Amino acid sequence: MNAWRTRETTGHESPRELLPRTEFDDLLGRVGDFVRRVVIPAEPAPGEYLDLEVRDDLRAQAKEAGVFAPHVARRWGGLGLPVAQWPEVFEAAGYSPIGPLVLNCMAPDEGNMHMLEQIATPEQSEQFLRPLAQGDVSSCFGMTEPHPGAGSDPSQIRTEARKTETGWVINGEKRFSSGANLAAFMIAMARTGDEGQATMFLIPMSAPGVKITRQIHTIDRVIDGGHPYVELNNVEVDDDAVLGEPHRGLEYAQVRLGPARLTHCMRWLGLAHRAQDIALDRGHERRLFGHLLEEHGIAQELIAQSEIDIETSRSIIRRTAVLLDEDFREGTRLSSIAKVHCSEAVYRVIDRAIQLCGGDGVSDELPLAQYLNEVRPFRIYDGSTETHKWAIARRASRRRQRQLTERTPDRTG
Amino acid sequence: MNAWRTRETTGHESPRELLPRTEFDDLLGRVGDFVRRVVIPAEPAPGEYLDLEVRDDLRAQAKEAGVFAPHVARRWGGLGLPVAQWPEVFEAAGYSPIGPLVLNCMAPDEGNMHMLEQIATPEQSEQFLRPLAQGDVSSCFGMTEPHPGAGSDPSQIRTEARKTETGWVINGEKRFSSGANLAAFMIAMARTGDEGQATMFLIPMSAPGVKITRQIHTIDRVIDGGHPYVELNNVEVDDDAVLGEPHRGLEYAQVRLGPARLTHCMRWLGLAHRAQDIALDRGHERRLFGHLLEEHGIAQELIAQSEIDIETSRSIIRRTAVLLDEDFREGTRLSSIAKVHCSEAVYRVIDRAIQLCGGDGVSDELPLAQYLNEVRPFRIYDGSTETHKWAIARRASRRRQRQLTERTPDRTG
Amino acid sequence: MNAWRTRETTGHESPRELLPRTEFDDLLGRVGDFVRRVVIPAEPAPGEYLDLEVRDDLRAQAKEAGVFAPHVARRWGGLGLPVAQWPEVFEAAGYSPIGPLVLNCMAPDEGNMHMLEQIATPEQSEQFLRPLAQGDVSSCFGMTEPHPGAGSDPSQIRTEARKTETGWVINGEKRFSSGANLAAFMIAMARTGDEGQATMFLIPMSAPGVKITRQIHTIDRVIDGGHPYVELNNVEVDDDAVLGEPHRGLEYAQVRLGPARLTHCMRWLGLAHRAQDIALDRGHERRLFGHLLEEHGIAQELIAQSEIDIETSRSIIRRTAVLLDEDFREGTRLSSIAKVHCSEAVYRVIDRAIQLCGGDGVSDELPLAQYLNEVRPFRIYDGSTETHKWAIARRASRRRQRQLTERTPDRTG
Amino acid sequence: MNAWRTRETTGHESPRELLPRTEFDDLLGRVGDFVRRVVIPAEPAPGEYLDLEVRDDLRAQAKEAGVFAPHVARRWGGLGLPVAQWPEVFEAAGYSPIGPLVLNCMAPDEGNMHMLEQIATPEQSEQFLRPLAQGDVSSCFGMTEPHPGAGSDPSQIRTEARKTETGWVINGEKRFSSGANLAAFMIAMARTGDEGQATMFLIPMSAPGVKITRQIHTIDRVIDGGHPYVELNNVEVDDDAVLGEPHRGLEYAQVRLGPARLTHCMRWLGLAHRAQDIALDRGHERRLFGHLLEEHGIAQELIAQSEIDIETSRSIIRRTAVLLDEDFREGTRLSSIAKVHCSEAVYRVIDRAIQLCGGDGVSDELPLAQYLNEVRPFRIYDGSTETHKWAIARRASRRRQRQLTERTPDRTG
Repeated sequence: MNAWRTRETTGHESPRELLPRTEFDDLLGRVGDFVRRVVIPAEPAPGEYLDLEVRDDLRAQAKEAGVFAPHVARRWGGLGLPVAQWPEVFEAAGYSPIGPLVLNCMAPDEGNMHMLEQIATPEQSEQFLRPLAQGDVSSCFGMTEPHPGAGSDPSQIRTEARKTETGWVINGEKRFSSGANLAAFMIAMARTGDEGQATMFLIPMSAPGVKITRQIHTIDRVIDGGHPYVELNNVEVDDDAVLGEPHRGLEYAQVRLGPARLTHCMRWLGLAHRAQDIALDRGHERRLFGHLLEEHGIAQELIAQSEIDIETSRSIIRRTAVLLDEDFREGTRLSSIAKVHCSEAVYRVIDRAIQLCGGDGVSDELPLAQYLNEVRPFRIYDGSTETHKWAIARRASRRRQRQLTERTPDRTG
Repeated sequence: MNAWRTRETTGHESPRELLPRTEFDDLLGRVGDFVRRVVIPAEPAPGEYLDLEVRDDLRAQAKEAGVFAPHVARRWGGLGLPVAQWPEVFEAAGYSPIGPLVLNCMAPDEGNMHMLEQIATPEQSEQFLRPLAQGDVSSCFGMTEPHPGAGSDPSQIRTEARKTETGWVINGEKRFSSGANLAAFMIAMARTGDEGQATMFLIPMSAPGVKITRQIHTIDRVIDGGHPYVELNNVEVDDDAVLGEPHRGLEYAQVRLGPARLTHCMRWLGLAHRAQDIALDRGHERRLFGHLLEEHGIAQELIAQSEIDIETSRSIIRRTAVLLDEDFREGTRLSSIAKVHCSEAVYRVIDRAIQLCGGDGVSDELPLAQYLNEVRPFRIYDGSTETHKWAIARRASRRRQRQLTERTPDRTG
Repeated sequence: MNAWRTRETTGHESPRELLPRTEFDDLLGRVGDFVRRVVIPAEPAPGEYLDLEVRDDLRAQAKEAGVFAPHVARRWGGLGLPVAQWPEVFEAAGYSPIGPLVLNCMAPDEGNMHMLEQIATPEQSEQFLRPLAQGDVSSCFGMTEPHPGAGSDPSQIRTEARKTETGWVINGEKRFSSGANLAAFMIAMARTGDEGQATMFLIPMSAPGVKITRQIHTIDRVIDGGHPYVELNNVEVDDDAVLGEPHRGLEYAQVRLGPARLTHCMRWLGLAHRAQDIALDRGHERRLFGHLLEEHGIAQELIAQSEIDIETSRSIIRRTAVLLDEDFREGTRLSSIAKVHCSEAVYRVIDRAIQLCGGDGVSDELPLAQYLNEVRPFRIYDGSTETHKWAIARRASRRRQRQLTERTPDRTG
Repeated sequence: MNAWRTRETTGHESPRELLPRTEFDDLLGRVGDFVRRVVIPAEPAPGEYLDLEVRDDLRAQAKEAGVFAPHVARRWGGLGLPVAQWPEVFEAAGYSPIGPLVLNCMAPDEGNMHMLEQIATPEQSEQFLRPLAQGDVSSCFGMTEPHPGAGSDPSQIRTEARKTETGWVINGEKRFSSGANLAAFMIAMARTGDEGQATMFLIPMSAPGVKITRQIHTIDRVIDGGHPYVELNNVEVDDDAVLGEPHRGLEYAQVRLGPARLTHCMRWLGLAHRAQDIALDRGHERRLFGHLLEEHGIAQELIAQSEIDIETSRSIIRRTAVLLDEDFREGTRLSSIAKVHCSEAVYRVIDRAIQLCGGDGVSDELPLAQYLNEVRPFRIYDGSTETHKWAIARRASRRRQRQLTERTPDRTG
């Protein structure tokens, strides 16, 4: 049971059943096949963005192939998989950098859908979740702010929502609002009380006072809709724009983040797998100093290290996904560790693939340099490696003290 | 289903059932409690060996506590856990360096028991497995030989068994025969044909011609019975000394090694966990430059890295253990990767704990330096990190080629 | 004495004198000042190229400031520093990504000038070296070829030069011909005999048969003139186009490469230093969780690791530079080790700076992501890390055997 | 000029001259030859201590060979080399773990001699330095105390010296007093005022009130005389027992530590070199899977990484040694960085050598496991890696701020 859900009154979802193994294998086969047959041939050149019309056409094919929105409940048009069965599907989708977008399980929409499913009212779900799940619109998440505001430390949030009689007036500035350029709405966090008191709001991007200002050019390409600054200038919303209960925004953010950082791991692991395959193919076709590249020991060292990175990432992702269904609190703890390990590991795998491919690896002859730029920011967003390490260490120290004083067993999920 | 067993006629075991979760949690609680309450207080000083009488007394208590021989079938006196449930139990036992010995799940006996259960005839089982499972005798495994003989490359085996009318005459020399000084019998590999043709024999250490010669002093302490050279000089055995079928010895060695290297990971992970706890306790009690050690960021860096090493190890161990029950071939592939990752990770964890404990870490004020010496050889035995990496890389290259030519799906266990 | 030069008859240079310490300190001060005052304000935005007119204007100022072409002999218009005094000057220039271009000590021109000084005839020097040294023209180096041709293994060269009565006819294809788009001439390597027999030619880019074909888009920006494919189609040259003696091209390549890869290290170390300063500035201005970023221990860990990377790089660069003047053979051996260490180290330093700067680090708010792309290829060109490691290991094995058999002392430079 | 010495009135030494290159090469040849011919054959078995009589006999031979006490001024019986020429000699001595002891340049005596030369009065020098330099007696250094006392943070010193009319009464407890069991005297630090006010005293171990209490067993073997606790119980000394001026003890400790941690680097680098040679020899003699071990790429990876570790260590050691003569303050800054890099690097080199030697590496068949235990504590003593990193980071931040505010040039030694 999702521990978080048990503490909640707003959870509308009953726990999902695992798809039986043979059906799941069949689904996985279809996803893999779809990615190879349909998605990969449609990939844009390195450094380019996917054309929106092409995207929509691919999405239509994904629906037909029965691989669309695998993480969303059936009632909203998805495949209804429990979190425990996301890892293999998301990894298969992520084998193409545009795969998750095509299957509609890309950030930030995927995390937003998951949170809406957990917290939104039926009316909010109809208005925001349904079109999002069907790929008719896209969304963004408004958390990060210009310094000094919410960043590594979310409690520094400065955007404020002031209560009026029938609703709220919101003022503030967000940045790194991934996807905002194309989004129909933003899920925005605003301070509604003392430190630690924040509320989530559903705000249409067309609402008066919402304004996209400066674009930030970043090195990734696969998150549609840019990473701009967004101004919220006296934005007025009704009470029913509140997502969940007021003042519990920071708590809800965890509901979103625990799984959301893990789904990043799943998707990027797929890209790491792709990079490793590109390197293996090169290793099998290039001849150096009289031997195939793959037979050179120092190349084998790189290949083996990447295998280890891939399999340890796979292992902690899958264990964490099961935990997120069974014990949300422990799952969130582990997802923090998984995030650090996987974000560093997938970076290393792609980096090694580049070494194995030599000059072509750092040029557009191969997509690897772009892959590296794609995953580089993941070591920073959703909590940087360093911020997580700091939290991991403090959590470890506290858990140990608790064990010693309470003599509680040291069970591990 | 154990894929290996399905190919075999000699497998006497039906697949084991998972212990229901509540019973399993209860067992885990008992093991943890027993280790803390009984085993840890009886640990020898760093650098010393456990006294044999103390060991036997502790074992008697372990039987009483219902935690003895967790991996052995009930009919031979064990707890009958499937491999999928070994990781948590073995880790809990390994929290003390002598825990696995006390619970009778230490190498090399544990691997020998596992193999005997899979391959031995009922008569062989009564004679060799039963007393081993009950802790009445111990055993050794005779594989490694002086150079140039079986080492990293087992096919170089030079010990030879010559067929006679009613049995075999065995000649050769083994070394690093862990446990031989105390063993009642050796499971010895001998060449019985061309390269790749070897047979396993059950040889009492008291048999004429078996002679322990030179002792090799190593840096570990927790494997009882030393690591001596053993001479096999015209050792005569009957046909019923053959374990399994003749000429399939190298194949059987894989049956032993796949799980055996994973159980090492499980046990040593327990010791890494112990080292981390010792470091956390130090971090909570020492004050430096005006702050608790655990509050210094560079200490937190070490603590966090160790948490990541511990949790990634735990994750790949558990996934591999499940696979060894479900798909033995894939489980063996993954156990090779797990072995490299875990052996390096547990070493790093203990090494960091030493740094956190300063001068006491490299002296007998704490057991950490001995722990480091305990796990150092694990990066070498059961296939060194480098040998495994070489195999991992070649396996990755071949799998990729197979996928490309057969267009087989790239499923991962 | 340059050991290589002693074997040569074509060396026109007498060994250079060290600039006295106070004059050298004065020069260093001028370079640092010039870079900060003139060069940095003129840097193009991340991802952009330096405008050629701006470049020429900056170069004029560099000449005026007495910091132009520090590595070139005075008679050709440079400052005449011996290799031992290049490290600090090149590092100071490299503090700006465009600094070396402005000071005319950027690859590939810098390495070409150095080689021309060593090998060219007086006439060739007048024609090619003088305008290059004065920054009136630029050049390229034609070594790398499409697979299977010269790459990691230069002996695989396929471009061929056929002797005619009065000259040569050259046919082949080069790629990654850095700078070719703007170059006035190419120093091209062509096979002129059996394996290991190649000759270097001075070829004007305007010569009939020389054709730039496909551009390769790479992730760096600071090497002017692209990295295109260049076709050599029946290119006819006279005998005086031969650089040095015929058939000794591979040997000369070492003359170029030993110092050339070390000057890369020097320049990129400057950029690493810059990245570290950007990170330190951020650490001093950002406040997180109630403390300055620079006071957080996990940030200090990154800063300290980068300091270590910078200082070890500095140390091996300076020692190698001295050796290249004193003992060219030993200097070349060490420059291979320095290349691996420094290319990996500068990459890590910039990578850590990005972590320290968070989201701004992976966007155009800061130039760091571009710096990372700038130095990424250096782990590949001039011999990849892996190719060098392979050579380093074999050299170590051979040296040890030589010592054992000849009982030669194991002196280190 | 030694920057520290210029601030001092007690420095009796004029700056030393470099030995001319040919004489120095000759000396180096003699040291290398002596170590190979005389010292190595006399090495004790792994885990054993060098017999004192054997030591004295070897020392007599070292004197005869003209290689004794290379770092001590000629007037005290040494060879009088300036610090800049220590690195190669100390490394050559350290090629055997007992080499430095035999040449009388081992810790803690070597550091004590260096400090006495800098600070002691002529009378103190006659009484303490002369017999030490001649190897007639040994010494210890009393700094570290039981927690909470002087450890990573020397200002926490608790041993106190109270002024009497004609001298001092000292009370306190020291631990990790390396060498105390055999020492004739201790240079002890005691608090003589507020925090940061401490004084150094020369105390004969036979003085009433000096008592060696508990021995601490550590994993190293080559520092003679153990690492015991030493009680100072109302120890009375005269005023002339003060080393240097009163209250400047912490400052003098830096005079000792800067060079002392660098000489550790030099000596241990010699042992790393030895381990690499042992591994190279093994690589040349072992055949695996049809090839020499040294031809396997994954072995080459290890060999190359160790070459890089050795050469970067050599480079920063030599640069730092030159600086310690030229600019003591900058030299001390760099010696902190060198200490971290070298202590970690030599550990890795020996660790890799063990991997290359397999089972023999972790047993007494080879001395490598003992070498690893020998260098493990060096990552902790003289400032642990973590303590140094913390200091390195803070120093980097401060230096950057200074540059920005004062616009001072950022010169590097």
